[in-house]
Amino acid sequence: MPLLFIECFLEKANIRLLTITGKLRLVIDTGIGNIAKNCRGSSVLNTKKTAVIGLGSMGWGAALSLLKAGFVVRGCDVRSEVLTRFAESGGTPCTTPASAAEDADVILVYVVNSKQVEDVLFGQSGALETARPSTTFLLCATMAPSATTAIAEKLEAAGMFVIDAPVSGGHVRALSGEITVMASGTPEAFDKASAVLDAISAKVFRLGDRPGAGSQVKMINQLLAGVHIAATAEAMTLAAKAGIDLKTLYDVICVSAGSSWMFENRGEHIVSGDYTPRSAVNIFVKDLGIVTSEAGKAGAVTPLAAAALDLFEEASQAGFGLEDDAAVAKILAAKSGASLPGVKD
Amino acid sequence: MPLLFIECFLEKANIRLLTITGKLRLVIDTGIGNIAKNCRGSSVLNTKKTAVIGLGSMGWGAALSLLKAGFVVRGCDVRSEVLTRFAESGGTPCTTPASAAEDADVILVYVVNSKQVEDVLFGQSGALETARPSTTFLLCATMAPSATTAIAEKLEAAGMFVIDAPVSGGHVRALSGEITVMASGTPEAFDKASAVLDAISAKVFRLGDRPGAGSQVKMINQLLAGVHIAATAEAMTLAAKAGIDLKTLYDVICVSAGSSWMFENRGEHIVSGDYTPRSAVNIFVKDLGIVTSEAGKAGAVTPLAAAALDLFEEASQAGFGLEDDAAVAKILAAKSGASLPGVKD
Repeated sequence: MPLLFIECFLEKANIRLLTITGKLRLVIDTGIGNIAKNCRGSSVLNTKKTAVIGLGSMGWGAALSLLKAGFVVRGCDVRSEVLTRFAESGGTPCTTPASAAEDADVILVYVVNSKQVEDVLFGQSGALETARPSTTFLLCATMAPSATTAIAEKLEAAGMFVIDAPVSGGHVRALSGEITVMASGTPEAFDKASAVLDAISAKVFRLGDRPGAGSQVKMINQLLAGVHIAATAEAMTLAAKAGIDLKTLYDVICVSAGSSWMFENRGEHIVSGDYTPRSAVNIFVKDLGIVTSEAGKAGAVTPLAAAALDLFEEASQAGFGLEDDAAVAKILAAKSGASLPGVKD
Repeated sequence: MPLLFIECFLEKANIRLLTITGKLRLVIDTGIGNIAKNCRGSSVLNTKKTAVIGLGSMGWGAALSLLKAGFVVRGCDVRSEVLTRFAESGGTPCTTPASAAEDADVILVYVVNSKQVEDVLFGQSGALETARPSTTFLLCATMAPSATTAIAEKLEAAGMFVIDAPVSGGHVRALSGEITVMASGTPEAFDKASAVLDAISAKVFRLGDRPGAGSQVKMINQLLAGVHIAATAEAMTLAAKAGIDLKTLYDVICVSAGSSWMFENRGEHIVSGDYTPRSAVNIFVKDLGIVTSEAGKAGAVTPLAAAALDLFEEASQAGFGLEDDAAVAKILAAKSGASLPGVKD
């Protein structure tokens, strides 16, 4: 990334520096928004009440980061064992979104897709049954931009603030409060969610005032991420078929023009034959489905995303849906008659 | 790249350190070969006579790097204006491969494809007409591994040494003698070409004793590079169609999981609407053609490489073959009805 104009909100930083734990915020202006980066520490200006709906790997990480930062956190999940673990970690377990949303200042929605988001917000025992007006909702699921916009409008019509806030970075970073947020929303919404965003993320891209803009950028990121995972799988499979040592190939490509963030990350899973899910095949069935569907509606062609989606769908249908997304390589290996480490021929 | 076992050939380094310009070589063992990196400076143990056949952007860079390092360099090209410029730069211009190869210790072949390599080596006035036995040939074109193997066998049958030495890194690095070489060949061939490799490259991956292994790894690199360029074009086009500011998107993706070496590099060309050829569309028509053809012969499936190749072929047929490879975006934009910077709708 080229160096952009850097400005420090020194007054804000100074107040925090003097009053709490020494937190400095850097804001890098991108023209239409800004990138906020927490430099160190963690602080809460006013202890706030939060709710996290959906305690999957990313939601769990956010909830624990909020607890660590001193927030009161009510957490909601359909799995009772997760709620038990959450109570043991210091959170307040809730069995419905409505009970989690009671009294909350900020509500983070971490379920998987737009259908689930609608259910937990607007369905029976949904958050809107109890949420007070002016509550701020962070929509953290990866959704079609059109779905995000529709949901945000419905929330705003009910008097709520909304930040479109899809996240990136994986469960390890979620747990350490260091994810990236591709965010958009009104300045008021950001003001209200500022301390929460500080607690859960290392970087917040502010992509505009309109919910939907964050989801658009996340969608493009997922197009690239999904294609790169599939390309990594294709490259490794062809290499295995050609008799190339995969570890050597991995080392060479990682420092060559063929490299990608996903090649470096998922390529290692294929080399070691480890398909423990960090992110799952089914996530990319969903996310590349969003890409091709939204592109189709807009009249844009996405032949690579379509080819990658085909592979993830085949992998899911073959029973690999809950495995690591790198398991898309198993489909290519089976079709190519190639042997990959740790994969039965 | 994970840190590998590092061993320094201290005796070699010391000799050079003491006798020439202070050159240190680090060799990182990858198990089946090694990665040699020049740390600083440039030296020639014995002034050697070299020939560079094909003074295109990469060959020109290599030839000038050799001249700078003190080699005698005979250069051959079909374009008389290039030969004139080469003479002005201190090289010896030759109109045929045969005249360039006279008296050479090491011959670098930098033409575009395997057909041209065969012509300049074995055709009329080809290098084999004059090359002395035991001359070392560096085959630097990106060729199908099967073609490389066949050409190397023919050279070795004529008593020559061969290094399969496709290069990566672009013309800027070629000019500064800092390309990467994905190399394979016998230890004797490497010994004979060592000073030449030092002069033209920053990094040499030694991928085995057998010519063909270097071309295999280069082919996998090109699969990824070509797919990543096409994915960059697809992502930028969809973003443009969705009304996302491309510069902001570029800045966000460069530090997110959707990034790739090619996205960072070629994405900038699309954002600025600059299609001045650094590498050309036609190069990827050739290289992805090699990938799909070799994969087809081996029975491997490569749906992403095939989809990317379709786009590069369409771009070439539409008249963009000699433009920067990022011009593949023009095809996607035309099909999608999207407006890209600097591209007429």
